[in-house]
Amino acid sequence: MEKINIEKKILGENERYAFENIVFLTEKKKLCLNMISSPGSGKTTILTRTINELKDRVRIGVIEGDIQTDIDAERIRATEAPVIQINTEGACHLSAPQISEALKNLPIDELDLIFIENVGNLVCPSAFALGENGKIAVLSVAEGDDKPAKYPAIFAKSKALLLNKIDLLGSGHVDFDLERAKADARRLNKSLEVFPISARTGQGMADWYDWLVNSVAETAK
Amino acid sequence: MEKINIEKKILGENERYAFENIVFLTEKKKLCLNMISSPGSGKTTILTRTINELKDRVRIGVIEGDIQTDIDAERIRATEAPVIQINTEGACHLSAPQISEALKNLPIDELDLIFIENVGNLVCPSAFALGENGKIAVLSVAEGDDKPAKYPAIFAKSKALLLNKIDLLGSGHVDFDLERAKADARRLNKSLEVFPISARTGQGMADWYDWLVNSVAETAK
Repeated sequence: MEKINIEKKILGENERYAFENIVFLTEKKKLCLNMISSPGSGKTTILTRTINELKDRVRIGVIEGDIQTDIDAERIRATEAPVIQINTEGACHLSAPQISEALKNLPIDELDLIFIENVGNLVCPSAFALGENGKIAVLSVAEGDDKPAKYPAIFAKSKALLLNKIDLLGSGHVDFDLERAKADARRLNKSLEVFPISARTGQGMADWYDWLVNSVAETAK
Repeated sequence: MEKINIEKKILGENERYAFENIVFLTEKKKLCLNMISSPGSGKTTILTRTINELKDRVRIGVIEGDIQTDIDAERIRATEAPVIQINTEGACHLSAPQISEALKNLPIDELDLIFIENVGNLVCPSAFALGENGKIAVLSVAEGDDKPAKYPAIFAKSKALLLNKIDLLGSGHVDFDLERAKADARRLNKSLEVFPISARTGQGMADWYDWLVNSVAETAK
């Protein structure tokens, strides 16, 4: 019982900050998307390609969450997008107070869209609201088409699902039934947008960009 | 402060069970290995192939941890190995009390080796002792060679590292520097055994089998 009370208290503080963050973002009319996946699904590669290819249409900033290192922030920095690195020092997810601090350090008025790249983990980050406008789940086809069924929370809570590394389909190296993964994810979340993409080759990225541009325009209204 | 005390209490209970489990396994002279990786690194495929190909040399039982579903247990069951499914209902790791219960339900005297397939998560399971003799980390080459640097805990704590899906190397679909991943992991853990394998094609599995057979023989002494 004690454990539950403490968890409530911790979640309570997180949610207070999450609420402040969403109020801040709404007043500023900025879109903020919280990207969640396992390690190695391709979050950073998706972000660097998206930033580079949308450069003339959307001004993007990034909040990078990692347990250790600034390897990912360095990759984002190479695109010249503003980036704030958060090292969680062992924690398996970002928290709303960390995002609050990072938002203060981004040049928010010069941005249209802030991506949060959460710590690589398909489970824990889905339980912590950060004040974002929506979550983006990423699943690589190298991980297997049973993942929406096995890890339902993040698929149920996301606005969009990026099925990455589709250049591997038909290579003979992976078995991944795109329709099964889509159907399982949509069973959990009827309004989920699903984009099969390859951030490596660029395949399918145009639809994802259109969705981002529209979402930014909706937020700026 | 309160939070830290509660965590200590929870860990305390987990460690009491972990201690009982290791005492039980030591008395029975059974080897128990706790397999940890991200979702989709290939844990279940490694286990099914290992069970089938070692059938005449090692009697293997499996404790399957999943947040939801018994998809993995069904795959193990097809090998005819004894398997116990644990559904954590949202929790991101297995705990020692769950293993204690599962060990009671396995035909332990008819087994040489018990594999625990932990919940797919590269972060949280590494913090919870289950009473195992050792941890086995699995990293697929589709996940990127920067993972030992970015998620050090599991690589620091494991007895062996399986670098899976090496059939993808040289396919043109992934960039993964095997030597970098090995060097980073060994920097964290000098005695780490590293096995580059493909559970799909069977490449490299023989060395992993030899290591298992030797480890079982050492435990049975």
